[in-house]
Amino acid sequence: MSQGKQQQHQQKVKPQTGISPTRAEDYPEWYQQVVRAADMAENSPVRGCMIIKPWGYALWENMQRVLDRMFKVTGHKNAYFPLFIPKSFLEREAKHVEGFAKECAIVTHHRLIAGPDGGLVVDPTAELDEPLVVRPTSETIIGEAFAGWVKSYRDLPLLINQWANVVRWELRTRLFLRTTEFLWQEGHTAHATEAEAVEETLKMLDVYADFSENTMAVPVLKGRKTEAERFPGAVETYSIEAMMQDRKALQAGTSHFLGQNFAHACGIKFQSKEEQEEFAWTTSWGVSTRLVGALIMTHADDDGMVLPPKLAPTHVVILPIFRDDETRAKVLPFVEKLAAELRAQRYGGREVEVEIDGRDLRGGEKNWGWVKKGVPLRVEVGPRDVEAGTVIYGRRDEPVKDKHSVTAVEFAEQVVSLLAGIQETLFARALKHREDHSRRIDSWDELLAYFTPTNSSSPEAHGGFAWVHWAGDPAAEEQLKEHKLTVRCIPMEHDGETGTCIVTGKPSPQRVVIAKAY
Amino acid sequence: MSQGKQQQHQQKVKPQTGISPTRAEDYPEWYQQVVRAADMAENSPVRGCMIIKPWGYALWENMQRVLDRMFKVTGHKNAYFPLFIPKSFLEREAKHVEGFAKECAIVTHHRLIAGPDGGLVVDPTAELDEPLVVRPTSETIIGEAFAGWVKSYRDLPLLINQWANVVRWELRTRLFLRTTEFLWQEGHTAHATEAEAVEETLKMLDVYADFSENTMAVPVLKGRKTEAERFPGAVETYSIEAMMQDRKALQAGTSHFLGQNFAHACGIKFQSKEEQEEFAWTTSWGVSTRLVGALIMTHADDDGMVLPPKLAPTHVVILPIFRDDETRAKVLPFVEKLAAELRAQRYGGREVEVEIDGRDLRGGEKNWGWVKKGVPLRVEVGPRDVEAGTVIYGRRDEPVKDKHSVTAVEFAEQVVSLLAGIQETLFARALKHREDHSRRIDSWDELLAYFTPTNSSSPEAHGGFAWVHWAGDPAAEEQLKEHKLTVRCIPMEHDGETGTCIVTGKPSPQRVVIAKAY
Repeated sequence: MSQGKQQQHQQKVKPQTGISPTRAEDYPEWYQQVVRAADMAENSPVRGCMIIKPWGYALWENMQRVLDRMFKVTGHKNAYFPLFIPKSFLEREAKHVEGFAKECAIVTHHRLIAGPDGGLVVDPTAELDEPLVVRPTSETIIGEAFAGWVKSYRDLPLLINQWANVVRWELRTRLFLRTTEFLWQEGHTAHATEAEAVEETLKMLDVYADFSENTMAVPVLKGRKTEAERFPGAVETYSIEAMMQDRKALQAGTSHFLGQNFAHACGIKFQSKEEQEEFAWTTSWGVSTRLVGALIMTHADDDGMVLPPKLAPTHVVILPIFRDDETRAKVLPFVEKLAAELRAQRYGGREVEVEIDGRDLRGGEKNWGWVKKGVPLRVEVGPRDVEAGTVIYGRRDEPVKDKHSVTAVEFAEQVVSLLAGIQETLFARALKHREDHSRRIDSWDELLAYFTPTNSSSPEAHGGFAWVHWAGDPAAEEQLKEHKLTVRCIPMEHDGETGTCIVTGKPSPQRVVIAKAY
Repeated sequence: MSQGKQQQHQQKVKPQTGISPTRAEDYPEWYQQVVRAADMAENSPVRGCMIIKPWGYALWENMQRVLDRMFKVTGHKNAYFPLFIPKSFLEREAKHVEGFAKECAIVTHHRLIAGPDGGLVVDPTAELDEPLVVRPTSETIIGEAFAGWVKSYRDLPLLINQWANVVRWELRTRLFLRTTEFLWQEGHTAHATEAEAVEETLKMLDVYADFSENTMAVPVLKGRKTEAERFPGAVETYSIEAMMQDRKALQAGTSHFLGQNFAHACGIKFQSKEEQEEFAWTTSWGVSTRLVGALIMTHADDDGMVLPPKLAPTHVVILPIFRDDETRAKVLPFVEKLAAELRAQRYGGREVEVEIDGRDLRGGEKNWGWVKKGVPLRVEVGPRDVEAGTVIYGRRDEPVKDKHSVTAVEFAEQVVSLLAGIQETLFARALKHREDHSRRIDSWDELLAYFTPTNSSSPEAHGGFAWVHWAGDPAAEEQLKEHKLTVRCIPMEHDGETGTCIVTGKPSPQRVVIAKAY
């Protein structure tokens, strides 16, 4: 947004908010401004690729740390496979796969030489015999390796995870949500039986849901994808679906049961206990830096980012207030002692992370900076507080102007429960938002009405989650798409209520969830 | 190595070793066999790219964890920048840089389409306007970002690190030591003054040396590179140099003082305290998965990998020995109790990592498997040990047949000091090796003789580190290259002894280190 446009927004918004425009005014632009104000990421000079700045990257590192532990506890080991995939590998896959994604970065040459004008040109004599594709996902290259590693049923299950960058040539990109290059983890496993592979697929879906709800404080629905929304090559795709504050759905993680498709394509065979040669059953599952986008769109408010304490790079920021060297000498030792007391405690498997912001800036400017970054607890300490042994603190899940005064001793005693309380509040708030915007719908007209904005000032509010009887007919799904709607998932948990499809009138075994989606 | 060749080796070697050939027989092949036997990595179907298998990757993760903490303690923050660098960015750099590396992976297209024969072809209509290079290093793309981030002296120093994959199109590759794609970290910093940037460059060299000696147990020399060996674009390049067991040098990490070269190329300018516009001073520094190769070539022996405990993914492997269900029921609870007692302790900032290997394999096969993987302590427990309350253990820094018998209580009490002892032994052994193969040399003939194999059965032993007076003449350095020798570094620490260059006879302020190198 231009400087002028921003000022214009700030003038017309009352009361003044940390972020302009507000969510209600312009949700997509609000999102960009939150990312910018929290200094999490920016666009790079390379089309569609982002630069993840330290605050955004620290969030991703915290996500990685928690997820990595969950993967290891469930028996997975990390490994690393090549960035490049030979074209012939994708051809093998493409034979099996109708909807093969062909937009990708292709390496065709391996040398730059000096050009006639002093610049550099691609050396035409250095063309590769076979083009290499920068991995959009690694099923084929990992499958090829698995084929070499698996000989006998004793080698199974093979439970591997990779943390990596991947590239998909996207036309329209948005920071974190959809970028040409992104960071992710991809789990790849091979099993001796179908039942074990299905169990693994669902286990990792549970891990993702657990992570999303208990670490990110983002409630999710676990469900199965329709055939149209399935990963090409998968027998079944499962996902976790979250509702953003504009009521659109965001697919936050996927887990694929690949049957024997990739085992056939890559030759992953093993000798069974019965000494028969059999093809393995494989799975793959992944989450990406897109989760950072989900976090922002679930918790951030009109004042900026709001971080769930379990992921916050800094739990508590202390803002010492002093006018001169004398008050400084009074305040600094006090806040350093407080910081040490806080750091001696643990929350969510980490030391309580404390930052003392002693920068020479106006107090209001500093305070707002940390509000926009979403730090859970802000603590102010001035000379009079030191005399009284008190601190004034603000919680990021409460309005910025709300302040609490307690003794420093009390604050240190309460800090872990305060953080736990904020984590709970954020989850409860997001859950209520989803429940407030979920509805059982039993007719096509009602469905369309639900997704038609009634209030022209809020063109970005998209109905919510419509729980609808639907019989699984692909033609009916096409009809949804005309209205920018999709079946987000066939939920794993349902109440057993049967009904009739609102499009075809055919019998429906359960309600599915229909929404607009990112 | 072919099966036949391997058998041939095994037949002629006495006593039998875990790895064949031995170091003395064929050092390069020994290296490959250690990597294979420890299951650390393998070649991939993509030319020059390796697959890092779980055991090798766990080593890298442990290196990352320790280094990352050291970077953060010294004030650096992690961020992530694009994989791709526009060709024009490299042109900017190339103008400043004579020896610009042009062998790289170049992305020219962004779409694959169905070809005439059912395969996939590169879509000729999807050519990029500007080719993108897969980053060989990120000075230019990070410099461009820094130019946007730095406005005032208040924004400095900017201390950033990135963990990433990079690609350099290498002709001859060897697992870990030189691969087309590798994993590394690259630090990039910008400073207001030359003195601060130089200080940063040397501080990070110290961090690398500290990590190498105290975590990897690999002794290193810190030194400055000659002009010929400098990173193109750097004002000074510093490195840590380690001696491998074949007496060749391996550059294990580099730290570059870049002066204002990249600040000029990328436009990193700031307003000084005196309100003058000035160019920043920058540094960059990196270590890579090459360190895994250095670890192998420093510590591994003729029985396989030998891991310094501070980096070992598993510190202690327990091998329960039982014949039947009855002895099994006796042994397993005993080893599980022991494992719990070990895991309750910490070594090198981690829980003591214990694996109980209950696989249904012959004891000798299991034991040798863990020897080859380099686990520091192997513990055997059979039914009679359970009765006596004892265990039998072997240390990986001692011959495989050497065993110690102690009570389980004693072993649990001693485990941390045993690990510390192994860590110390490995460092002392490597240091002694370097000292045994370092020599002051004062004539050209003596230098050549030092690097001429005297024993035809050991063609791979390469003299060692020659400490030689040398006056810094590039022509003299060329003469060294004819004998496959290079000035590895101009050491930071020296005794003040001056002399005359052994090539030119000119006055020399200090001895430099000359060696063959990886």
